[in-house]
Amino acid sequence: MKFVKTLSVAGALAALPTFALAQDAAAPGFDEIGPYIMTTLLFLVAGFLVFFMAAGFAMLEAGLVRGKNVAMQLTKNIALFSIAAIMYWLVGFNLMYPGDFNGYIGPIMGTTTWLEPVGLDAADAALDYASVASDFFFQLMFVAATASIVSGALAERIKLWPFLVFVAILTGIMYPISGSWQWGGGFLSELGFSDFAGSTVVHSVGGWAALAGAIVLGPRIGKYKDGKTVPMPGSNLALATLGTFILWLGWFGFNGGSQLAAGTVGDITDIGRIFANTNMAAAAGSIAALVLTQIMYKKVDLTMVLNGALAGLVSITAEPLAPSLFGSLLIGGVGGVIVVFAVPMLDKFKIDDVVGAIPVHLIAGIWGTLAVAFSGSATITAQLTGIVVYGAFTFVVSLVIWLILKAVLGIRVSEEAEINGLDMAELGMEAYPEFTKG
Amino acid sequence: MKFVKTLSVAGALAALPTFALAQDAAAPGFDEIGPYIMTTLLFLVAGFLVFFMAAGFAMLEAGLVRGKNVAMQLTKNIALFSIAAIMYWLVGFNLMYPGDFNGYIGPIMGTTTWLEPVGLDAADAALDYASVASDFFFQLMFVAATASIVSGALAERIKLWPFLVFVAILTGIMYPISGSWQWGGGFLSELGFSDFAGSTVVHSVGGWAALAGAIVLGPRIGKYKDGKTVPMPGSNLALATLGTFILWLGWFGFNGGSQLAAGTVGDITDIGRIFANTNMAAAAGSIAALVLTQIMYKKVDLTMVLNGALAGLVSITAEPLAPSLFGSLLIGGVGGVIVVFAVPMLDKFKIDDVVGAIPVHLIAGIWGTLAVAFSGSATITAQLTGIVVYGAFTFVVSLVIWLILKAVLGIRVSEEAEINGLDMAELGMEAYPEFTKG
Amino acid sequence: MKFVKTLSVAGALAALPTFALAQDAAAPGFDEIGPYIMTTLLFLVAGFLVFFMAAGFAMLEAGLVRGKNVAMQLTKNIALFSIAAIMYWLVGFNLMYPGDFNGYIGPIMGTTTWLEPVGLDAADAALDYASVASDFFFQLMFVAATASIVSGALAERIKLWPFLVFVAILTGIMYPISGSWQWGGGFLSELGFSDFAGSTVVHSVGGWAALAGAIVLGPRIGKYKDGKTVPMPGSNLALATLGTFILWLGWFGFNGGSQLAAGTVGDITDIGRIFANTNMAAAAGSIAALVLTQIMYKKVDLTMVLNGALAGLVSITAEPLAPSLFGSLLIGGVGGVIVVFAVPMLDKFKIDDVVGAIPVHLIAGIWGTLAVAFSGSATITAQLTGIVVYGAFTFVVSLVIWLILKAVLGIRVSEEAEINGLDMAELGMEAYPEFTKG
Repeated sequence: MKFVKTLSVAGALAALPTFALAQDAAAPGFDEIGPYIMTTLLFLVAGFLVFFMAAGFAMLEAGLVRGKNVAMQLTKNIALFSIAAIMYWLVGFNLMYPGDFNGYIGPIMGTTTWLEPVGLDAADAALDYASVASDFFFQLMFVAATASIVSGALAERIKLWPFLVFVAILTGIMYPISGSWQWGGGFLSELGFSDFAGSTVVHSVGGWAALAGAIVLGPRIGKYKDGKTVPMPGSNLALATLGTFILWLGWFGFNGGSQLAAGTVGDITDIGRIFANTNMAAAAGSIAALVLTQIMYKKVDLTMVLNGALAGLVSITAEPLAPSLFGSLLIGGVGGVIVVFAVPMLDKFKIDDVVGAIPVHLIAGIWGTLAVAFSGSATITAQLTGIVVYGAFTFVVSLVIWLILKAVLGIRVSEEAEINGLDMAELGMEAYPEFTKG
Repeated sequence: MKFVKTLSVAGALAALPTFALAQDAAAPGFDEIGPYIMTTLLFLVAGFLVFFMAAGFAMLEAGLVRGKNVAMQLTKNIALFSIAAIMYWLVGFNLMYPGDFNGYIGPIMGTTTWLEPVGLDAADAALDYASVASDFFFQLMFVAATASIVSGALAERIKLWPFLVFVAILTGIMYPISGSWQWGGGFLSELGFSDFAGSTVVHSVGGWAALAGAIVLGPRIGKYKDGKTVPMPGSNLALATLGTFILWLGWFGFNGGSQLAAGTVGDITDIGRIFANTNMAAAAGSIAALVLTQIMYKKVDLTMVLNGALAGLVSITAEPLAPSLFGSLLIGGVGGVIVVFAVPMLDKFKIDDVVGAIPVHLIAGIWGTLAVAFSGSATITAQLTGIVVYGAFTFVVSLVIWLILKAVLGIRVSEEAEINGLDMAELGMEAYPEFTKG
Repeated sequence: MKFVKTLSVAGALAALPTFALAQDAAAPGFDEIGPYIMTTLLFLVAGFLVFFMAAGFAMLEAGLVRGKNVAMQLTKNIALFSIAAIMYWLVGFNLMYPGDFNGYIGPIMGTTTWLEPVGLDAADAALDYASVASDFFFQLMFVAATASIVSGALAERIKLWPFLVFVAILTGIMYPISGSWQWGGGFLSELGFSDFAGSTVVHSVGGWAALAGAIVLGPRIGKYKDGKTVPMPGSNLALATLGTFILWLGWFGFNGGSQLAAGTVGDITDIGRIFANTNMAAAAGSIAALVLTQIMYKKVDLTMVLNGALAGLVSITAEPLAPSLFGSLLIGGVGGVIVVFAVPMLDKFKIDDVVGAIPVHLIAGIWGTLAVAFSGSATITAQLTGIVVYGAFTFVVSLVIWLILKAVLGIRVSEEAEINGLDMAELGMEAYPEFTKG
């Protein structure tokens, strides 16, 4: 339909009813559906960005393990994403948002009644929100990120299948239950706990699950010798850097998409603010680690710089909107500082976290959650409560599951397999057959 | 222009003509152009996602060939994309959609009359569709994907230039002609054949062209010895995994963009559904291959898991909208199963497909095209007809071209070049000069 | 709000005031905010694409240096991005666009008054443009790209910290000052100089800064021996190719986002045209280098093909909108030719540019800026003036800064460090500890 081109004041008045009629009386105009379309688009674009974080985690972790364990680390990462995708559909989404999707009659395959029909009529759409399909797609990517955190910490010694069983429980049941307390309208949100995009709900939860696993699993052979920590350098820092950049990219979707609306001036402008703040926190985290490692060790440590950027990102995730750019610089910078101190601290406790996932996701996640109180979006009590509740629940339940898995299946590869590398022992193939031999 | 801020009922009536006038009488309001803008945006975003698949194919293939052929594989991938871009502009687009762009006076360089002028006036725009420039950009990425499929199968032994000649013919002439039968309003679309995003039109076509090439070219030296298949493991599974994740990401654009509209509630919601289904099929394909290789070989095979995910994606591509999430899981899962069985089957016929492109793109593509009938979007007869027509045309024409190229230019490198690697022989450089030596 | 579904002509008239009221009298309808939302979205999407170019530069440069310098190159790339992000916020943005953001009271941390408040009211928004936060985010990515260009040229011999000091000055002060001459409404834009997305403002500026640095720094040890250029092949061409594809992807945001508007039919269609032209120029550049190296050296040179694609992209950046697709092919193709001739030419002058940044960004940038005159968007005099002004300013100021840094801090690592590699000497770690040893 072409708009009437020559209008007088009188003509405009006359033209308007025609316009309304020509729209098809049953269909709302773009004026009304615009916000729904924009927010759905937000979920799709932010969702594919967060999806790409799966590649980021895979590259980061593959780069930070030794060559003999790279293929296994890659296998774990693509498998955990796939399991998360299936479990979150099968159980998780309905467990996390039961109020919203209670047309759903239970976690039975094929009865996903919340998925809109093909060619949804505007009259049947939640015009004040977005497509549920797009929301599901977006939310699913978050649960996958949680599982990726665990795989990094437990690398180079855990068996494939018990790990995947844990992932299925974490992504299908644990994360959705605890996530509903904050994002499903549960008791923590009523209590005033505030976690915008998941410093606690996603990152700390992943970190707590990883910590429990690292304790039950024990350190890699030879990691702690005669009271000293033996460095086991990653095999490919180019991949680790690529992974960090991909995660940084994905984080714009992670935090920006968590605005959950893009159809008003206020919402889209807020997303701009979130993008700028998220970037600033990452930059500050990396520079903090750069300067600090130079001062402390007289040499810059690239893996610390990478983890500093990631810690900056985790730190700003609990509240990427309210702070100023300067506030974001401080929040992210502290995240970078935390990493530099927390990595050797964990080693003191002989907790072997191969890629630094616990400092980056758990400790910086706690810091970021506390920092929300500084920008006035929540009280420090509410934040502490949330941190403790998520920590207690995830750590205790994870510990129990890891202990059961240890008893029933065994979670650690044989000493021989660990020394020779998981790739040959568990997969019978190598990631770099021509580079690392002999 | 700021909206009048204080309105009474009377004021609103008075304000409205002003509003209409202030818009510039000649220009339609956003209400009317919104759908055009959203669909154009869809083509641009989906287009850059599918563009990135070129990087995905390059990484997947570079990771799955041996170190001595990596630089050549990279060269082929960037060259084939560039040739596709030029040929599709020069000939292909007009050949594929002649009815739509018949203002175009022929395949003569510089006379691309379908490209809109700078600063297109809304009155001259196809407001019920999208910018032709954005459509061209999106469509172009599909033809490039078709060519990428061929390069993987024929790796490690084909000469550079004859391969590029084939690519020019495939992307400029073959794909556009056969593509028009379905997407250009041709006889197969009239017959009821249905291929939403190209399980057949793109993936099987690439697979058939690759199969013809693999037969004419013959297997790599030493691949089949004494009735046994000799494994020739890829040099870099980290890159192959990265490539798979990039392809998975790009597929959201591939399938989502094929909705070809994003400006209504129904369309944007459908795209959400497509994203969710596409992701589910990929996850199911990878898990199917994971479980099956564990059961059959007692060890998980990472390259099978990667190809399983890709086969899941190819399978859902013919109809990513109609199935439920459970249906997508089944369709994608079968795709993963197909790969595990088809790879050794091809080896039995001594058809040497270096990266598994034929199982992933051709066989899973056929499966996905048939599966459309299950969701009721087409009859099984129409689907079988389409599969046979595309197969016969592409395989026969490809075979003829490969045979002509073989006779005229020779398509296979010398035995010495193949043994020493194509990189030194044809390029005089190595991809990893410090890693693979000695 | 659901639209009134059954309308008579009279009913429509009656319904309209209700409609206006229901919207909340103070809030404009989507019809008015649509363009603001679309342009803000453009900045966010284009911004994250250009952000990803940081990963592209990192991979390209890490792939083109030798294994012993890879970790340092990665460190420089993540650090320079972070420094650019901080300096452009602290000083640069206000320096570059002082007229637009003069509510800002000076370059004092935390007083960034141009950042919109949370939940911006539509009445307070620049409805004819976009969110300043999103604009800042987008602009910031350009300054980071400028700095990345320098890091590639000076690789394998420059000290980390003096390099980062230069980056801080370039991104905080030099780029913003010279950028304002064209994009901040300064004297060059008044003079008629035209540079759509930065062939000169971004790429040549980076190239001039790199050239000054390369002259002051001198070539790598052993690069020029007995009048001959000694090849020092990059360690990982797969990464270099990945980096090129990522840059190509990011360039859609670079050029497309520079339209600075997406809310009208004309603007979004123009962006489609820009995407198609940008892609064509890259394809033409890569094919030109492919064909030319085959003819000149009888062997295709992959790094030339990669740089050819990048040179095509740089060439089209000054005017990606006005040319036809055929024009873009010519402009990009000449860019590819330039690279093939300029790389050995620089070597003749014993200017050691490790990754070919000067041919790609400076020389192709000059060509692209001149080519604007051919499409009639500017006069050749205006273009030459701009080229000379940017060249003189950036080269002279850079030279002075490099000389001061050399005198004060020293900019070159010790001979021993250079021979053993910067990674062990300056970082104490290797990028590929298991691949390159022994």
